[in-house]
Amino acid sequence: MNTGKVTLVSAGPGDLDLLTFKAAKAIAAADVLLIDDLVNEEIATLKAPHARVVKVGKRGGCKSTPQAFIQRLMRRYALQGKHVVRIKGGDALLFGRAGEEIADLRHAGIDVEIVNGISSGFAAAASLGVSLTHRDHCQGVIFVTAHLRDGTEPDWAKLAATGMTLAIYMGASRIDSISEALGETLAPDTPAAVVQWAGTSREKRVCAPLGDIAARAAAQQIASPAVILIGGAVGEAIVELAARGEPLRRLSA
Amino acid sequence: MNTGKVTLVSAGPGDLDLLTFKAAKAIAAADVLLIDDLVNEEIATLKAPHARVVKVGKRGGCKSTPQAFIQRLMRRYALQGKHVVRIKGGDALLFGRAGEEIADLRHAGIDVEIVNGISSGFAAAASLGVSLTHRDHCQGVIFVTAHLRDGTEPDWAKLAATGMTLAIYMGASRIDSISEALGETLAPDTPAAVVQWAGTSREKRVCAPLGDIAARAAAQQIASPAVILIGGAVGEAIVELAARGEPLRRLSA
Repeated sequence: MNTGKVTLVSAGPGDLDLLTFKAAKAIAAADVLLIDDLVNEEIATLKAPHARVVKVGKRGGCKSTPQAFIQRLMRRYALQGKHVVRIKGGDALLFGRAGEEIADLRHAGIDVEIVNGISSGFAAAASLGVSLTHRDHCQGVIFVTAHLRDGTEPDWAKLAATGMTLAIYMGASRIDSISEALGETLAPDTPAAVVQWAGTSREKRVCAPLGDIAARAAAQQIASPAVILIGGAVGEAIVELAARGEPLRRLSA
Repeated sequence: MNTGKVTLVSAGPGDLDLLTFKAAKAIAAADVLLIDDLVNEEIATLKAPHARVVKVGKRGGCKSTPQAFIQRLMRRYALQGKHVVRIKGGDALLFGRAGEEIADLRHAGIDVEIVNGISSGFAAAASLGVSLTHRDHCQGVIFVTAHLRDGTEPDWAKLAATGMTLAIYMGASRIDSISEALGETLAPDTPAAVVQWAGTSREKRVCAPLGDIAARAAAQQIASPAVILIGGAVGEAIVELAARGEPLRRLSA
């Protein structure tokens, strides 16, 4: 019996139009689809109607399928000779635990291929109509998770001191403490935005100065899953909306 | 006469399979295509055979079309009522000067839409088979350009001190000075890789410790356009290749 293989496919933000052709082809060729948290389930019905579908993520109070179990499932199907496609939201190589899965599969002698996708920080910037790296403002962008393995938070002062745009993932539930910590280094009028469900039909977003962003996001009931963008480059969205005559308090959509 | 509009379309690394459906649809709907440097020109012939095509970038000794001229072209066609599609490599919102173009178009009252794509740092990581943010190694990733507006380089020590994976764009021609500067903060055995033409059929890559990466890239004649990846997460590629019994000196492909 041949050993199968695993393809880690990045599904992007959720809008099926933001899939790449390569991702759609990989999904169509799957024997088994493992569908992660936050992935649009229409992907399975529309793109791979005959594959076996296993949902391996749940949100909203339910316990997610443990990582070890997901890895065991992938190994089992692949060792049965199946082509397993593991679909992850965004880009699998950014905060997707792909590193652990790749190592585990390789250890078992299973081939792994990776297909890129659009991560939510990029979709959020597109929606706001801003470059992540406008050269009037910065030299680059930092993608960072607010949710560290050991329960602590990143060293916000050190990150802020780089002068780069910050794209903070998994931070919506603690935006209060994050914006307060960043406020020790950055000016309170540093432009900020929070975009929930970026790049999908459910998208909600708010732009405000750093000093107000937590309150504004709370007022708009913007919660997880969301990406927080901070830095001068983000301010171009505010400039634009102000130029259209929209008062600052109406900068959300 | 109606005002047209401009869509900034991110074409990804070059492989047409890495286009999103949304990008392909935008290209197919174009009246005029402005094609940037490094974009696979087959995009125009295959995806928009009837559009007017204007090439606005040249490499290899020729002077690139000046930015101001490109912006003028976009405005002119859009104000003629055309749907202008400006195709950029990678993701337009990362080091693509999209920020200036968006501001200029908005100033002229022209609608701008943005379509995301796969940036070369992501394609490079997929090719190496590594996560950009393996949580055994880091909390995130920094995308930074080595080519600053004023001719200086970023503060490498500050960036290295964050402990994040570094994805350095436009740095291949000065990899010597970059790796030397980073070596003042990072250990010489910090894993590094250079990937040229990531995500295309022309791809070349090399993995080596930071202390050797410049010499190894030179020996393999790896030059621009390339992305440099540095950090523990990148080392997973080296671990993997070593596990297959490949000696370290053969870690390039």
